[in-house]
Amino acid sequence: MSLTKRCIAEFIGTFWLVFGGCGSAVLAAAFTADGAKLGQSTAFPLGIGLVGVSLAFGLTVLTMAYAIGHISGCHLNPAVSIGLWAAKRFPSSELFVYIGSQIFGAVAAAGVLALIATGKPGFDLVKSGFAANGFGAHSPGGYSLTACFIAELVLTFIFLTVILGATDRRAPQGFAPIAIGLTLTLIHLISIPVTNTSVNPARSLGPAVFVGGWALQQLWLFWLAPILGGAFAGFFYSQVLEAPTPERQLSEVI
Amino acid sequence: MSLTKRCIAEFIGTFWLVFGGCGSAVLAAAFTADGAKLGQSTAFPLGIGLVGVSLAFGLTVLTMAYAIGHISGCHLNPAVSIGLWAAKRFPSSELFVYIGSQIFGAVAAAGVLALIATGKPGFDLVKSGFAANGFGAHSPGGYSLTACFIAELVLTFIFLTVILGATDRRAPQGFAPIAIGLTLTLIHLISIPVTNTSVNPARSLGPAVFVGGWALQQLWLFWLAPILGGAFAGFFYSQVLEAPTPERQLSEVI
Amino acid sequence: MSLTKRCIAEFIGTFWLVFGGCGSAVLAAAFTADGAKLGQSTAFPLGIGLVGVSLAFGLTVLTMAYAIGHISGCHLNPAVSIGLWAAKRFPSSELFVYIGSQIFGAVAAAGVLALIATGKPGFDLVKSGFAANGFGAHSPGGYSLTACFIAELVLTFIFLTVILGATDRRAPQGFAPIAIGLTLTLIHLISIPVTNTSVNPARSLGPAVFVGGWALQQLWLFWLAPILGGAFAGFFYSQVLEAPTPERQLSEVI
Amino acid sequence: MSLTKRCIAEFIGTFWLVFGGCGSAVLAAAFTADGAKLGQSTAFPLGIGLVGVSLAFGLTVLTMAYAIGHISGCHLNPAVSIGLWAAKRFPSSELFVYIGSQIFGAVAAAGVLALIATGKPGFDLVKSGFAANGFGAHSPGGYSLTACFIAELVLTFIFLTVILGATDRRAPQGFAPIAIGLTLTLIHLISIPVTNTSVNPARSLGPAVFVGGWALQQLWLFWLAPILGGAFAGFFYSQVLEAPTPERQLSEVI
Repeated sequence: MSLTKRCIAEFIGTFWLVFGGCGSAVLAAAFTADGAKLGQSTAFPLGIGLVGVSLAFGLTVLTMAYAIGHISGCHLNPAVSIGLWAAKRFPSSELFVYIGSQIFGAVAAAGVLALIATGKPGFDLVKSGFAANGFGAHSPGGYSLTACFIAELVLTFIFLTVILGATDRRAPQGFAPIAIGLTLTLIHLISIPVTNTSVNPARSLGPAVFVGGWALQQLWLFWLAPILGGAFAGFFYSQVLEAPTPERQLSEVI
Repeated sequence: MSLTKRCIAEFIGTFWLVFGGCGSAVLAAAFTADGAKLGQSTAFPLGIGLVGVSLAFGLTVLTMAYAIGHISGCHLNPAVSIGLWAAKRFPSSELFVYIGSQIFGAVAAAGVLALIATGKPGFDLVKSGFAANGFGAHSPGGYSLTACFIAELVLTFIFLTVILGATDRRAPQGFAPIAIGLTLTLIHLISIPVTNTSVNPARSLGPAVFVGGWALQQLWLFWLAPILGGAFAGFFYSQVLEAPTPERQLSEVI
Repeated sequence: MSLTKRCIAEFIGTFWLVFGGCGSAVLAAAFTADGAKLGQSTAFPLGIGLVGVSLAFGLTVLTMAYAIGHISGCHLNPAVSIGLWAAKRFPSSELFVYIGSQIFGAVAAAGVLALIATGKPGFDLVKSGFAANGFGAHSPGGYSLTACFIAELVLTFIFLTVILGATDRRAPQGFAPIAIGLTLTLIHLISIPVTNTSVNPARSLGPAVFVGGWALQQLWLFWLAPILGGAFAGFFYSQVLEAPTPERQLSEVI
Repeated sequence: MSLTKRCIAEFIGTFWLVFGGCGSAVLAAAFTADGAKLGQSTAFPLGIGLVGVSLAFGLTVLTMAYAIGHISGCHLNPAVSIGLWAAKRFPSSELFVYIGSQIFGAVAAAGVLALIATGKPGFDLVKSGFAANGFGAHSPGGYSLTACFIAELVLTFIFLTVILGATDRRAPQGFAPIAIGLTLTLIHLISIPVTNTSVNPARSLGPAVFVGGWALQQLWLFWLAPILGGAFAGFFYSQVLEAPTPERQLSEVI
């Protein structure tokens, strides 16, 4: 596969991650029957809630890993690319074009989502939060900067550990997309109230570009913590848990 | 497999898609404990909500793909058949009998569902919406025609991309039904509030025949947008992402 | 495997189906935070609702099919055994001992569940319904006998079609438990409001023995409709959709 | 794999089980939109509820089994290690170091979770229950000691039966993590209202260390019942259901 094809695949995959994950949150999480407003005592919760949003994020990765895993390895996430690079399973030479493709895909997805979401009369993109990530005053549950940083660091560390373990040559073939996608679902089940869940700098950037203000000011944490957690996991897995034989790139395995 | 057997399989499969997907929406989405009416502040939400309906639609495809994938390829959707045709994985000669079988299955399912649903005293089929698709005033969340058109177009494009990628000969064998079915779940998690989610002209036709009026008048969008999205994805995948070697039909792969 | 071992496996499997499926419904479906009573406007719905119960029933079959499929074929359901027999994939000679084991497992499970459920002060087993199946006045949503009969007939027909198709020798190996289990989840997502969902005469018998009265009087429908639907599917699949080569028993395939 | 590497894997895996499972319960189960307090009639339930917590616990095992199953067998649970030992699939010599690693992982996870959870102003760790297991007055639904003991005993028995059956050499390869993880999900769907669900002594210990008081006083039940249930299942499976040929350790199979 040429690098161009692989970058197109990363673009489409990251588009799907942000469009599907943030889309489900923005369009469907708090949907009520009969148009009752949230906070009215008669608002009947038909919406998908945090369970549905968690499922949606995980399924974007699960489905794309089967669709394009054989093309690009389906990273869809700068912290994943960096973690794989730290584990010596991804070459330095391709790191920046991969991350670039992911960023473009994420911003494009947020743009198309904005087009659809504003097709509902009365929708206020900035006021809605637009599924942007935040800490402190902008954490959904009001969690402190420290709590948010620890959560993103630990969760990305485990995310990469599962990615590296499930694509290890000793793991059963073909199941890695299920393991990896459902890990992302699980990560969201835990941490949406904390940071709205990032573990993915590109996913954080997409909505932040449209929300602006606080979302851009707080963006640094959602680049720093996931990348640190991912890189450390890559280093740890390859030094401590890996089998002695050399490992393959994701695109050979999924 | 003879074409007759394959058409019977497509009939049963599309019956299941509409009966299971629309059935869960009509019968179980807004069920309350103790028969409290929706909108009463004491209505306790036992119903499956949009998460359950999304799961149901996806599981119709996942389960049928394992059951009849080896017979007909399990398209269950004119936009899928057309997308596969555009990707040169399905012959022109069988396109119309497949689509015909899907339409008959969808209408039969809506009929049997109407029989069951009207077995509940006080159920008003037309007033309930009967899980028909709509835009503008008939979008569940009041989304504009443009927003609905973009959503259906983009979602069917991704749907076909996953179908083509997960049945690509480089993808792991046996997992395509999981990837494809859960993509349909994910599509519903995102877009039920927008259009009630179609991405499938036959699924839209079934309930519309029984609801009549607005549902038939708005049906054009749910044929046009999914078919355009599906055909474009078929063309795009086969021209840009496909490996140089010739691909197989779905029935050889699932 | 000796017939005795296979009967023990069917006993344990059907125990799990009834204990897990009915148990989740009785113990967890309508659980509220802070012990608020159902119907109070402040009752916060933490319980698993119909989505959770649907998942639970399906997962009993999915998990047991991997655990004991290689021992007994994991029928867990007289309608399944009869459907497989009608499809000539299960011998007449073992039909009655299988069904007997399933009945014992179902009643034992309902007994253990009764022990646990009555460990909560104020729990009234008969008044709770104890997850028994019913129609008319005892249908959760008040559906008529005709609607309930059609629903059980059609759903068991599809259930057996998936079982026969997913264990067909042309289907991918190893995935049948996922397809079959999730079909049972889907069946529940559609029809709990109609009949509380049976498609399984043994599952209906278990709780009915403890509820008595109406549950026993209405039991005939939940034997008749599933067995008719299952037998017809077995006949139909083997005559119309099956490949010409002879098929194997489930225990050779799962 | 050296024993050290396998203990590190058990530490990380059990960390994930407690951090993910208890974390989803503590941080996300009862989350409300707009910060409304639980018990207010306008509290809109966005939180993941018991369905989400059940999914989370199961997914910790499913995902880790693919990630580290090939390293340590992914027990993550003293009752599992003891059940496998009783089934003669795990050596006495490694039993205590495995259980030690699991205990350290569980306590470390509860510690990190405490750090994050207390980052929310007003969070009272002890008053929240911190996902500790309990019976009688500390059972979420007020279930008696006897009911709680029976539930934990029966559920761990079935849990080990599925683990032993799904890793039996006659079961399809690669699917055991799905079967085992989803069994844990199912166990939680049934029994969170009863005991908050343990079936895992290490998982019970983790939060109890931080809650203290009643949680430590009631801890005995969540060591005794799961270990009895697990050991009995190991003995039963190996004596009654196992094929005559010798079985392998989990790390050779998953």
